Amino acid sequence: MDSSSDHSPSSSLHSTGDVQNVKFCQWCGGPTKPGIPEGEERFRAICTSCGKIAYQNPKMVVGCLIEHDNKVLLCKRKIEPSYGLWTLPAGYLEMGESAREGAIRETREEANAEVEVISPFAQLDIPLIGQTYIIFLARLKNPHFSPGPESSECQLFPLNEIPFNSLSFSSMVVTLNLYVEDKKAGGKPKFHYGTINKRPGTSASDIHAYTLDHHMQS
Amino acid sequence: MDSSSDHSPSSSLHSTGDVQNVKFCQWCGGPTKPGIPEGEERFRAICTSCGKIAYQNPKMVVGCLIEHDNKVLLCKRKIEPSYGLWTLPAGYLEMGESAREGAIRETREEANAEVEVISPFAQLDIPLIGQTYIIFLARLKNPHFSPGPESSECQLFPLNEIPFNSLSFSSMVVTLNLYVEDKKAGGKPKFHYGTINKRPGTSASDIHAYTLDHHMQS
Repeated sequence: MDSSSDHSPSSSLHSTGDVQNVKFCQWCGGPTKPGIPEGEERFRAICTSCGKIAYQNPKMVVGCLIEHDNKVLLCKRKIEPSYGLWTLPAGYLEMGESAREGAIRETREEANAEVEVISPFAQLDIPLIGQTYIIFLARLKNPHFSPGPESSECQLFPLNEIPFNSLSFSSMVVTLNLYVEDKKAGGKPKFHYGTINKRPGTSASDIHAYTLDHHMQS
Repeated sequence: MDSSSDHSPSSSLHSTGDVQNVKFCQWCGGPTKPGIPEGEERFRAICTSCGKIAYQNPKMVVGCLIEHDNKVLLCKRKIEPSYGLWTLPAGYLEMGESAREGAIRETREEANAEVEVISPFAQLDIPLIGQTYIIFLARLKNPHFSPGPESSECQLFPLNEIPFNSLSFSSMVVTLNLYVEDKKAGGKPKFHYGTINKRPGTSASDIHAYTLDHHMQS
């Protein structure tokens, strides 16, 4: 996760893709105006000077659910948003890397841990904030981990001691719930797809006020 | 898929995330300069006027692999890139929609078909061009389909007649190969994750000159 709160999951209203956010053209610096390009159906920020279109698209947040001795590794956030709350190591996918590589990198950055990715575990879309979480199951290559610059603690939690009331984001609640259910059911964890929507009228900070819609598993 | 070739998968060199592409600040119009922000490790385009950072991230391309009577539905592209070649209905995920919704929308736009999504089928990252393909298995809600504005034909192909030498992108070759293998093996198709890399020294237009790395399935 970048240290800039502007770039952190769940913090950024600007990630809702409001075309109003792109006031100037990145290529020529000219002012933009919202408009529907020919052959399209959506409003885009279009440059009034060079005519180029600034497309905005959802971002991927990639992370690892690390299994070790029937426990999972969580990091306590030392940055906003959700300072002091627990999270899986995760952050924005960067250009030039695969989701798997990004998840390994984020784990290295946030937990000083070297992991091997075992399998894809979940894709959770959050259309409201323009984010998609891509979570992999992983294992520690060696038993060493410690808080990186954006974490105050890293800790292994047995499944029945996961701090569900002190998690950072709805996506973490959903991911860990699905994992605990898969483990209780026995056998290998599945791959899960679903959409996280906010329950109408609830507070943005209430991480339990969501619905998991269109849940499918492979 | 948008009709702008600037916004089409595999066409856009600008999607490689070169910070040089962001010459001006989208918020204030000031000129940017490449630099590494405090606490980060990567070059970003930073505004020399207001100091804001223009993050660039990979984009998701969402689509459907539609099964009907042991055949799959392909569309012949009537737009560049890959004009005249066959593709699954797919295009960029838009702000405010889930991957599932985006895949359904693209199928409606490109094949005038109404589909029900059955299960997640593949996530294929292409780090070289900053794209991730998210493909769902789907079925037709009714047997009607016809070419949308960006397609010249839509056709159901039996698995042994898929035009592997006339497909539009490597991602389509990989997706359809995995699907054919899963069907040959019998049982339910799996969920696949993998990274598509270009074989060094090969032409960008050779859609068969790739390797599928870190292939994992659930």
